[in-house]
Amino acid sequence: MRSPIERYLRDLHQELSGLKDGVPFQGIPAMADADPDDFAICLATVDGHVYEVGDSRTDFTIQSISKPFTYGLALEDHGLDAVDRKVDVEPSGDAFNEISLAHDTGRPANAMINAGAIAAASLIKGSGGRDGFARILDIHSRFAGRSLDVSERAFASESATGYRNRALAHLLRSFDIIEDDPERAVENYFRQCSIRVNARDLALMGATLANGGRQPLTGEQVVDLETVQRMLSVMLTCGMYDDAGAWTSAVGLPAKSGVGGGLMAVLPGQLGISVYSPALDPHGSSVRGIAAVRRLSAEMGLHFVKAARIGRSAIREHFPITDAPSGVRRSREAIDLLTEQGHRAQLVELHGDLLFAGAESVVRHVSSLPEEVEIVLLDVRKVDEVNDVALNLMEELRQKFEVDGRRMAVIDDAGRISEVLCAGRTPLFPGSTEAIEWAEERLLRRHGGPGLVPSTVALPDFAALAPLTEEQIAALEERMEDREYHDGELIRRSGQKFGGIYFIVSGRVANSTVRDGHRVRYTTLGPGMTFGEIALGGGAPVRVRAEEKVRVRLLSADAIERLERDDPELALALWKAVAVDAYTRVEQNLQEVAVRDRD
Amino acid sequence: MRSPIERYLRDLHQELSGLKDGVPFQGIPAMADADPDDFAICLATVDGHVYEVGDSRTDFTIQSISKPFTYGLALEDHGLDAVDRKVDVEPSGDAFNEISLAHDTGRPANAMINAGAIAAASLIKGSGGRDGFARILDIHSRFAGRSLDVSERAFASESATGYRNRALAHLLRSFDIIEDDPERAVENYFRQCSIRVNARDLALMGATLANGGRQPLTGEQVVDLETVQRMLSVMLTCGMYDDAGAWTSAVGLPAKSGVGGGLMAVLPGQLGISVYSPALDPHGSSVRGIAAVRRLSAEMGLHFVKAARIGRSAIREHFPITDAPSGVRRSREAIDLLTEQGHRAQLVELHGDLLFAGAESVVRHVSSLPEEVEIVLLDVRKVDEVNDVALNLMEELRQKFEVDGRRMAVIDDAGRISEVLCAGRTPLFPGSTEAIEWAEERLLRRHGGPGLVPSTVALPDFAALAPLTEEQIAALEERMEDREYHDGELIRRSGQKFGGIYFIVSGRVANSTVRDGHRVRYTTLGPGMTFGEIALGGGAPVRVRAEEKVRVRLLSADAIERLERDDPELALALWKAVAVDAYTRVEQNLQEVAVRDRD
Repeated sequence: MRSPIERYLRDLHQELSGLKDGVPFQGIPAMADADPDDFAICLATVDGHVYEVGDSRTDFTIQSISKPFTYGLALEDHGLDAVDRKVDVEPSGDAFNEISLAHDTGRPANAMINAGAIAAASLIKGSGGRDGFARILDIHSRFAGRSLDVSERAFASESATGYRNRALAHLLRSFDIIEDDPERAVENYFRQCSIRVNARDLALMGATLANGGRQPLTGEQVVDLETVQRMLSVMLTCGMYDDAGAWTSAVGLPAKSGVGGGLMAVLPGQLGISVYSPALDPHGSSVRGIAAVRRLSAEMGLHFVKAARIGRSAIREHFPITDAPSGVRRSREAIDLLTEQGHRAQLVELHGDLLFAGAESVVRHVSSLPEEVEIVLLDVRKVDEVNDVALNLMEELRQKFEVDGRRMAVIDDAGRISEVLCAGRTPLFPGSTEAIEWAEERLLRRHGGPGLVPSTVALPDFAALAPLTEEQIAALEERMEDREYHDGELIRRSGQKFGGIYFIVSGRVANSTVRDGHRVRYTTLGPGMTFGEIALGGGAPVRVRAEEKVRVRLLSADAIERLERDDPELALALWKAVAVDAYTRVEQNLQEVAVRDRD
Repeated sequence: MRSPIERYLRDLHQELSGLKDGVPFQGIPAMADADPDDFAICLATVDGHVYEVGDSRTDFTIQSISKPFTYGLALEDHGLDAVDRKVDVEPSGDAFNEISLAHDTGRPANAMINAGAIAAASLIKGSGGRDGFARILDIHSRFAGRSLDVSERAFASESATGYRNRALAHLLRSFDIIEDDPERAVENYFRQCSIRVNARDLALMGATLANGGRQPLTGEQVVDLETVQRMLSVMLTCGMYDDAGAWTSAVGLPAKSGVGGGLMAVLPGQLGISVYSPALDPHGSSVRGIAAVRRLSAEMGLHFVKAARIGRSAIREHFPITDAPSGVRRSREAIDLLTEQGHRAQLVELHGDLLFAGAESVVRHVSSLPEEVEIVLLDVRKVDEVNDVALNLMEELRQKFEVDGRRMAVIDDAGRISEVLCAGRTPLFPGSTEAIEWAEERLLRRHGGPGLVPSTVALPDFAALAPLTEEQIAALEERMEDREYHDGELIRRSGQKFGGIYFIVSGRVANSTVRDGHRVRYTTLGPGMTFGEIALGGGAPVRVRAEEKVRVRLLSADAIERLERDDPELALALWKAVAVDAYTRVEQNLQEVAVRDRD
């Protein structure tokens, strides 16, 4: 099925194909004969999907769209301050080929005009056996995600006729903005303008910028986020030459055009956009390129103001752990204590982005919890994006929260957040069940004493046998076998048929099941609890494993069969108890599911 | 507990209090005597929380920070094109009080310099019994969320000494940029500069812009999103006068300063920021204001490039409905058919924002589903933000998807998305259980015929009684009573004690429970299924209501008691069957929960 986005791009391409204004750049023969009907539109997402319409694999020379990339390399090589001393970041309000040097220092107004771009090219020195230009070509290739090359014909032609740029280079040398050979700088500049790309390359170069400097296909971090910030800022204020204000108002995307007919625009965090169409307007920008990006921004809501996420709370829900108990079966006394004290432990489920605004809402929420809340379980599994600012705020929050013996724990399965936040200081759980169990036992010990988390339970104290008389329990016990398992031992395999009812006297076992190749641990059972009955439902895909040394009393399936023959009345009482116990579990499950499905 | 953000702001305030550069504006006596030690920093979130540090309730005059607001009102009154004919949107590169009129038309370069602001003020006419200035004051008040007033002393003083601005007004009149009385325009401009605000007001005015024009406290949509887009674009490119490029590179936030000592900055979608400190730098901006916003942007990651959300997929998970069955109990044949055909129905759970990038990923995913997938259930309950572009893409997706008899359904509890997407054309469900049940029955009818969704089931065909012999079932049937319920009739109340086992012969019942005051429907039962057993677990908070005319066979609690006395062997078989059936349910629940807990 064709995607509506492809359909949209095809319609846009079709419609703008009718736009016949402008002519290809006439300055050099290599470009004057470009086919004015060539036309491509591409979108590349930050996860590396590329929509391509039209002549997206047709090569053309990158021209001025190289300027931000060489500038970016200069920033990486020398740092912001050193580069700023050579090239300013102010819009000139002039055309691309204006001189625009500060009258006192000779500093070019910005790196998007030719003077600034030549100055930037002069800053790229050879390194590691490669000369300056090889490094310029290399950074372009890494942004594109493939090896690019140079149109020697275009280069020869530019080099032969580029008097004005050659003049600029010498002028920059006279001001010591260029400190070495101005001929080398301007030749490298001519060469960089002659790098061959296609529209798909440009879209991916834009997507690499959108993705904070990480190339979506190769995964390489090509430049730092700080460098990207500067590149996109300068593109936004100076990229579209003398129409910067109108461009920002109407389109609101950092962009750069080249006289080769290319145009690249970037929606930070989301998209790289490119258009190729060689017919140019009087400013030297592609006529269809400008039209297409204007339409895309307006119709797809890409302007930086519209694309801004309305910063909703990062808190998806929060509730006391009594709303979603761990499912560990406990004594009446323990249940009562948790009912009474459970509000002291809160689970806070986060989602969306933890950038400043998201972290702010979490910090605000946790900071304003009443003193009586002594445990906070932060469930970060649904968080999308996190930055350092958020991590630092959260870590500071944790420290403040834990001052008076309160505790924070994190539920995380990916580790991005817990790496910083926990780092050995904070309990970390892969799922909410385990975290809630930990919180429950902390509350039980703190507010009820250790007796509420028993280490050994005798058969008459099992909740599952509550409906039976003491005599009946004693009679059942005679039919049971003792079993012991060591830490890590497998007790029940997935899909095994009913083998009897296991009564845990001491130790803990973990139940897990498999979904899509992932093993999911869903509950832990301890003394006073039973397992094995679920196989009555027909080979349940449940695995039971000892988590420490475990002692059980097993009423085996065979023993139950014998019981049914020998003592139908006791068997009836047993099965009734099993049924009642089962429905107690169904009800508990129901409560949990109801909570999960809320909102 | 004090929030780390408050702590951070207090530390920043403390540290920058040591910055003693600059002096208050000396142009008029009303401002020259401002206390240079006054200092406030405020942050206002788009949900209306305001962090205030320092002298945040001290009044000062708004001065040039009024320019974007009056410009916004002009845009609302006349539209973009009409205003653009009077005031351009290009950075001037000049100081705020430069003349900067186009040499041919006299059009001011932008609305952030005085000439453009006076032109914008001239465009505000009286309306609805209020004169132009009352309307200017009103729009400022609506942005701030409270009634503001004017410092008459500052106004008198500005009016008496503002020769240059008066000259600008007459010059604009000479070019017909101002079309009526230039004195009225410049007087209104002086008055608007004299509007009294405090730092808290400015932060909320910024937050209103961040929030797309909706005031966070009053909830009023003060101006359109299109107007906000233009206001913030012009602030970004022209707001900080001659340092626009450096400001954008380092700070990356639309901002505006005033000689009264105020500074307002906006992080679209997230925050309004304000600083008040009257000592000014040579450009006329607050020294501490500039320093504080630079620090906040760098340390909190607020630059537009850094604050951009890395556009992850909006798809949280997707799975065939066989991974999370509805829980409706069905015949063996129906279960087999669903096991075989269930992959034809997919549930796609979305989260995060559905702006362009999010919608793109959904459209891409659904478009690339194989032909055999004939039902898609879009669960949009966890979606945060949606825009029209996304809605249109999704509606187009739906139309394309449904061309060959495929169907899309939506799971939504808020209605934002389904309003557009469904509008009577597409099934809409409040929860996933109902949606999956609908999908299952559609598959059963389509691939298996109507027999798999039976309307009447006889007792021997009940899954729950499968372990019993025909004779045992017949003996049980003799002990049952017939019951009929009309559509909507309450069959079991929440918390009622065990009253027996209800066997549904025909019709459907809905089970629901209550959580936090919300009734949650969690399953629907039909012919061949039973209910009532859950009360064995002890007064479950479950309500059962007939959804149409329902016929049941009831084996009452009394009848079961009599059975236990009269025929212990049959009672044993019954209880064993109930226990087995219960664990079948426990296992089903487990499967559902395991799916939910995955990832």
